[in-house]
Amino acid sequence: MSYCVAIKVNQGLVFASDSRTNAGVDHIATYGKMHTFDLKKDRFVFLLSAGNLATTQAVVNLIERDLTSSEAKVNLNTVGYLFDAAHYVGQISVGVQEEHRDFVRKSGINVEASFILGGRIQGKPHDIFLIYPQGNYINASPETPFLQIGETKYGKPILDRVISSDTSLEDAARCALVSIDSTMRSNIAVGPPIELGIFRKEELAMAHRLSLNPSSPLYATIQKGWSEGLRRAFRRLPRFDWETGAD
Amino acid sequence: MSYCVAIKVNQGLVFASDSRTNAGVDHIATYGKMHTFDLKKDRFVFLLSAGNLATTQAVVNLIERDLTSSEAKVNLNTVGYLFDAAHYVGQISVGVQEEHRDFVRKSGINVEASFILGGRIQGKPHDIFLIYPQGNYINASPETPFLQIGETKYGKPILDRVISSDTSLEDAARCALVSIDSTMRSNIAVGPPIELGIFRKEELAMAHRLSLNPSSPLYATIQKGWSEGLRRAFRRLPRFDWETGAD
Repeated sequence: MSYCVAIKVNQGLVFASDSRTNAGVDHIATYGKMHTFDLKKDRFVFLLSAGNLATTQAVVNLIERDLTSSEAKVNLNTVGYLFDAAHYVGQISVGVQEEHRDFVRKSGINVEASFILGGRIQGKPHDIFLIYPQGNYINASPETPFLQIGETKYGKPILDRVISSDTSLEDAARCALVSIDSTMRSNIAVGPPIELGIFRKEELAMAHRLSLNPSSPLYATIQKGWSEGLRRAFRRLPRFDWETGAD
Repeated sequence: MSYCVAIKVNQGLVFASDSRTNAGVDHIATYGKMHTFDLKKDRFVFLLSAGNLATTQAVVNLIERDLTSSEAKVNLNTVGYLFDAAHYVGQISVGVQEEHRDFVRKSGINVEASFILGGRIQGKPHDIFLIYPQGNYINASPETPFLQIGETKYGKPILDRVISSDTSLEDAARCALVSIDSTMRSNIAVGPPIELGIFRKEELAMAHRLSLNPSSPLYATIQKGWSEGLRRAFRRLPRFDWETGAD
């Protein structure tokens, strides 16, 4: 499993991912799931990936090959809209899965993969898209300003409570870190380091990129601060009638 | 879906459940999932249920019939240990599922159900058991003092952070409420009212039983207090370097 989340706020985009891959409990490895590409100066695109590692690696390889190959009919530099980019990645993903499906199905392995693609093309708004294993995709909306792939449930409640379109980029980034940290505490298929990217809408490059291990001072302070804050919030919850002697 | 949680602490037991059942989005109903039984004075047993409603209702009906039927070889009044009770409920559950499995499978419906059984029999310690759809069961341990069934993931992080064996009964109860409330905010298949039971180990009866709607003053205060506490915890998280002008 993996866990990736992208958040679209008015100021820009935040995207974050864990780095654990596992094919059974005795085959655990660390792989980055955050991909950026060397594109023309009028655009910035990132890709987060979850699912079958062979599929996601093949998809990233093909995207990069298309950027330099003269035979590619479309690539991330030629698309006019971000949704074109999402469509393009969806088609590559379906093609890769299709190629291996029959062989792999016999061994009971799932070759499916999901992606979150986001960024901005000059003159157009910033956005994020969730690309399903079937190749179709949805984008975020003002009412649903975040998208998740992989092991999504543990980290959703904090996003539901904190994130709205006018959340600041830094608060959205802190929320993404807490969301991934909560998931890591509850599910061993999600693990460090956490990769975090921050994109300001007025720039066409990543503003900040961090790779955080539990030993990183920032991560350790956020983890400790959040644990203490939760315990403090918990201690302040109202008492039951019988605790206050009212019964 | 449903969400039920039971917590075993040194002082006793807390058990809680939501009340929504759904068979598709246009077939939503409210059913209690917390069951207690009229037993001999030397024992207290509760049952939480999740899964196919026809299965869980049949299981409860059969448990109650066995309590009055002279033909029953075993019932909740005759078992000598709580794990005997878990075994007995598991056998009933498997029998009910087996009876309907062939017919129901043809219509693509899942008749599986899970249960949490807990309580105490005089002279023996209090405990909780998770009964799988296959009829086998596990109990809680000092390292894992809570058990969950149904839609378990959204509400697990707060349990992971707060609950240990020496948590007070009331704190465990507040944590169960927060865990179910978080789940309800993130998943519409889990809904109010929240039923909450508290059992003190030195008594052989339920100490407190509450049914909480979002409009109940206690629930509303806990919900508001928790939201505010989370936001406060969130505001106190450390800043990134670039926010403090360090870069």
